[in-house]
Formats: sequence, C-alpha cells, structure tokens
Amino acid sequence: MPDSAGRLAGLVAEAGLDQFLVSELTNVRYLSGFGGTNGACLVGPDKKLFLTDFRYTERAAAEVDGWQIEIVSGEWLAGLAGYFEGNVGIEDDHMTVRTAAKLSDAAGEGVELVDAGGKVEALRRVKEPAEIDRIAAAAELTDSLYLESVERGLVGRTEAEISAFVVGRMREEGAEPSFPPIVASGPNGASPHAEPGAREVGLGELVTMDMGALLDGYCSDCTRTFATGELDSKATEIYEVTLKANLDGLAAVRAGAVGSDVDKVARDVITEAGYGEYFGHGLGHGVGLEVHEAPRLGMRSNDVLAAGEVVTVEPGIYISGFTGLRIEDLVVVGEGGIDRNLSTVSKELTIVQ
Amino acid sequence: MPDSAGRLAGLVAEAGLDQFLVSELTNVRYLSGFGGTNGACLVGPDKKLFLTDFRYTERAAAEVDGWQIEIVSGEWLAGLAGYFEGNVGIEDDHMTVRTAAKLSDAAGEGVELVDAGGKVEALRRVKEPAEIDRIAAAAELTDSLYLESVERGLVGRTEAEISAFVVGRMREEGAEPSFPPIVASGPNGASPHAEPGAREVGLGELVTMDMGALLDGYCSDCTRTFATGELDSKATEIYEVTLKANLDGLAAVRAGAVGSDVDKVARDVITEAGYGEYFGHGLGHGVGLEVHEAPRLGMRSNDVLAAGEVVTVEPGIYISGFTGLRIEDLVVVGEGGIDRNLSTVSKELTIVQ
Repeated sequence: MPDSAGRLAGLVAEAGLDQFLVSELTNVRYLSGFGGTNGACLVGPDKKLFLTDFRYTERAAAEVDGWQIEIVSGEWLAGLAGYFEGNVGIEDDHMTVRTAAKLSDAAGEGVELVDAGGKVEALRRVKEPAEIDRIAAAAELTDSLYLESVERGLVGRTEAEISAFVVGRMREEGAEPSFPPIVASGPNGASPHAEPGAREVGLGELVTMDMGALLDGYCSDCTRTFATGELDSKATEIYEVTLKANLDGLAAVRAGAVGSDVDKVARDVITEAGYGEYFGHGLGHGVGLEVHEAPRLGMRSNDVLAAGEVVTVEPGIYISGFTGLRIEDLVVVGEGGIDRNLSTVSKELTIVQ
Repeated sequence: MPDSAGRLAGLVAEAGLDQFLVSELTNVRYLSGFGGTNGACLVGPDKKLFLTDFRYTERAAAEVDGWQIEIVSGEWLAGLAGYFEGNVGIEDDHMTVRTAAKLSDAAGEGVELVDAGGKVEALRRVKEPAEIDRIAAAAELTDSLYLESVERGLVGRTEAEISAFVVGRMREEGAEPSFPPIVASGPNGASPHAEPGAREVGLGELVTMDMGALLDGYCSDCTRTFATGELDSKATEIYEVTLKANLDGLAAVRAGAVGSDVDKVARDVITEAGYGEYFGHGLGHGVGLEVHEAPRLGMRSNDVLAAGEVVTVEPGIYISGFTGLRIEDLVVVGEGGIDRNLSTVSKELTIVQ
C-alpha cells in the first residue's frame, strides 16, 4: 500500500493541527491496510496510532504495518478521545454530528475538534503504480465480461438476468461488482440510474451496460451501449453525438486541466447537437479504493487534474419516453494527455443480438 | 409500507420541533417507499414533503405515495434548506458535521437545526404484520439454503465456495445476501467476524455459518453451527453451553424485558460454564429494513422490548487458537414470550460431512 502516512503528517502540520483523526473506513484502509469494520488512525507529528477494538486484535496485527496498534477497551469514542491532545482535526465530511459531540464531550478541556476533512481523499487522488495495476486488473476483468455478455447475446434475456450473469462471473473470478451493474434497454435507457428489471431486451434497441469490478481492493468502472439491430435515425444520432463527446472529453484530459473545463468540452458537443438538456450529470469522477472518489469532472468542479489520477469520462444522453445511452472510459491522467485508457472494449456502434 | 408518517408527525410536535428532516436513506425508504439514492423527507405539522433531484423524477412519482413531491434543482443542500422553517430537527446520528454546517448556513436567519436523531428508528422497531411477513419470507429462504448446504456437504469444500453457493442461490431466488455470509471452520470459528477464505473444511470440526437474505426490502439473519464428524469433548461442551445460552436467552424474550436483562440471562449460562471471557459481543439486535437495527440486546442496552419487534438471539463462544461457534435465532417478540421463532433449522448438534 502507498506510504502515505508521512505525506499526511506533513499536511496535518501545515494545517496547524496537533493531531488528525482518520475515522472514515476507506481512508483508514488506505493509510493502514486495515480492512475490518472498526478502526481509526490518529496521526500526530511524532506518532502514528492505529486504534481498533478487541474483535480485531488478530486482524490488526496481520494487516497493519508501520503503525502503533492500540486496542481500545470499553466505550469506543471515549477510548479514542483519551488519546487526543490539542487541536485535533476530524473528518467533518464523514463524521456525524452526534459522534463529534460525543468525542468533544469525552475529550474534555484543552482539546478542540477542528473541521479538517478531505485530506486523505486528496492523497488518494494520485495513484501509485501498484494501485494503477490493480485498477487495470479490475478494468480488464470488466472488459472480458463485456465480451462474454456480447458472446452470450442480449436479445430475449431480461436486464436482471444479464446483470446477474455478470455478477456471478465476477464472483467466480474472485471479484465483486464495484456497484450493482446497470443494464438499461430501450426506453429504460432514458434513466441514467436505471435498475435492471424484468424487461426483456428486444430487437433494434439501445442497451446501456454500466459495470465495474472490485478486485483486490480496487475498483473499475466502464459503460458501453450496444444496439440490438438497426436503430432509428434519432437513436443512431444520439449514439454518435455521445461518442464524439466521449472522444473529445478524453482528448481534453491532461495534468493541469480543470474539471469544469474537461466537462465543458464534452458537454459542448452534446449541447451543439441540440441535446444539452438531456445530459444531466457530470462528465466523470475519480476511481480507486472507491468507485466514486476525487477528483470530479463536472460543471462546477474546480479540481485540477494531476498525472497519476484515474478518472472516468462518461457523457450520456437520456430522453424520457424515448431511449438513452452513456459511453464511459476509465483513464489514467498523464502530463500531456491520457497516459493510458483502461477501457478497451470497442466504442464503435456494435450490433449484438 | 407502514403508515408511519402520521406517527412521526406526532413525535415531531411532541419534541417541540416545527419540522423534522429525515435524510438517512433507509429511514426515507421506510417513510416514503422511495428506494433511490438521493431523497429526503421533511415532516411538519401540516405538510409532508418528499424531496429529490431531477434524476429521480420518474422514480419518485412511481414509488412515493402520500407525500408532496418536490424536485430540488441546483445545489441540493441549499435547495433543502429553502424549505426550512423554525426549529428543524435533524438526524444528528446520521448527518455529517459538514452537511449540518452547510444546511445551517444556507437556511439563514430564523432557522435553527436541532439534534433529534433516532425518531424514525424508534418507529421502525415495531413491525407491522406485512413487514413481519416479509422478514419471515427472507428467513424461510435462508433456512432452505441451510438445508441445501447440508445436503451438498461441507467437508472438502472451501469456506469461500460454500459462501458463494449460498449467495448464488439467493440471487436465483430474487434475493441478495443481507450481509456477506460467514463460513468459519475449525480454528477460524474463533473469530466472530471471520471472512470465508480458502480454508477447506476438514473432518471433526465445528463449522459456523451466519447468513441472511434481503428479500423484497427486508432482511433475515440466522446462524447455525454444524459438526463435520466426532468432536473432541471441549468442542462438544462449548456447543452445548452455547445452545443452552441460546435457549435460555430465547425464554427471556418478551414485551417489557430490558435488553441488558435478556443479554444477562444468556451470558450467565456461558459465564457459569467458565467461558464468559470468550463471549465478547452482545446477545442480539433488531432486524428489519436493515440487518442491524434497534433494539439491542446487550450488556449496556436499556432498550425495553415491545410486541412486534423482531430480534436475534445469538450467543457464541470464541476461543482463539482452538475453535468457536455461534447459534442465532430470529424471533418476533410477543406479550408473554416469543410470538414466533422465524429460524426453523434444527439446533441439535448435527453431523454434516
């Protein structure tokens, strides 16, 4: 795992904090390697404490390296607060109001909780090569399942069955879905977040499949849309417009680019074709330990891309009562453009029956 | 779904609140029927608003009945805050520090956020008959998968394979696991939260299987421990002690009983047998829309049981370096005792190979 605790300690000192409590479990996993359901990291200038409870004594010893392990007995929050000194940063974007109040009460005099969320997420943005390898492996598995799904055929199957096939195959390969796969056919494609249902895929429709794997701790995310026969001209048109938006968006991805600018490049393609009102979500997002993480590519994103970040580029057009689609690639940001496109399944409009 | 919004409005008025914002998604689903990933309920004396964003316009119309549906455009939290008036209760046990701060800023003068979490969870404790039917159906599916697993045999299979079989069968039946199934064999049984791994089940071991289904929105939860041949005397002894703790615990479940008292009845059995230090978790928990919900049966639980609540009774003994087990039933609380035990698989020590 990345040696990120040192970088975090630097950020903590920079922010004028005496300590920083990392309590969000994915962030805890990123820093410490701990995969259980109760643990926290307390980072100070001179110490790195990993805290958990008795249930995880053995697991912590096996998974956590480079941290002083403390087993908290009794009430968890009071136990944590017992280690607090001075200004203690908390992950205010994850911690509940009630937990913060309890920690504050338990810590007593001389301790102040300071809103300081987002620091670990910032570290997580740029992936180390070993992390990119894992994301690429998850993407490769997903790509192979697109090919298997095409091979099996779509027409006459229900959306739910297609989705269940993919999930089952992921499990056989030692993975889990990184989110419940979306299979949205015909009119259902008009909903960006459609849930696969009992609808049977028919002939001459668009079928949007959005899926990713969680493999060895890291996620992938990819969307492809297939045609199940000759499409009417409007469906063909929105496919071509979405594909151009995807390609132009990809061409805008590079270190130094601002999230809103990349979004605009793709969005302009769709808007100029007259479909702007039908693209109601952001262009993309970071992928790593979580399938949605920083940075964001969207109309209001000030995130500046950096080399080594892994982001999706996923424009879509969704026309209620008609149909819709999305085309999504997962790419590694490089200095002058995309370093690597991890999504290898063809984006040419492909007829699958 | 239960007609609970009226009861909630009563609680809100009682608490001196002008409005109550329900933002935790399971609570939102309970109140409104909405199953999407962004929605909130705002309950006041005269109005019941359901709020979501444009992505869920159609889904809200299909799923939400009896609420005035409002589609929030623009920034979500600012949109919500625009509806606030007076003292607005928030779910402080779910809402993050940052979200509360943003809502407070956006709401401006005259609005005060008041910590008021737990109200919907309190309503959710007592199940209506239609809810119990769904939980029972999920439990019945789980029971049938215990029988199928026994029929297939355990010895020579890996824990992971046994778990994957159960998950696959649930999906075939239109369900999902309510949590990742636990299959812990031999020494792995010493960890209450073991993850199924590559270990092959051997002969003459204890195998703990803890699993539940999520079917039609409601969860089940059940644990059985099997023997894969003749056990040594200590393993047999801890099984019998755990079974007695389960049976005595079940006998203590009734409306009016306090969570800590029920826990003590079962815990005393284990402590008196000399294994008290090896039972390191609470006796049980409520089950419903979530697999862990109120009430709790545990050493520090003041929850008073009521008829119609659905709780687990799950004592265990876990001896590091040796083995361990747990036996768990899911029951409906009745006035004078258990109204119904939803877990029907035999608890007599059963040899399965």
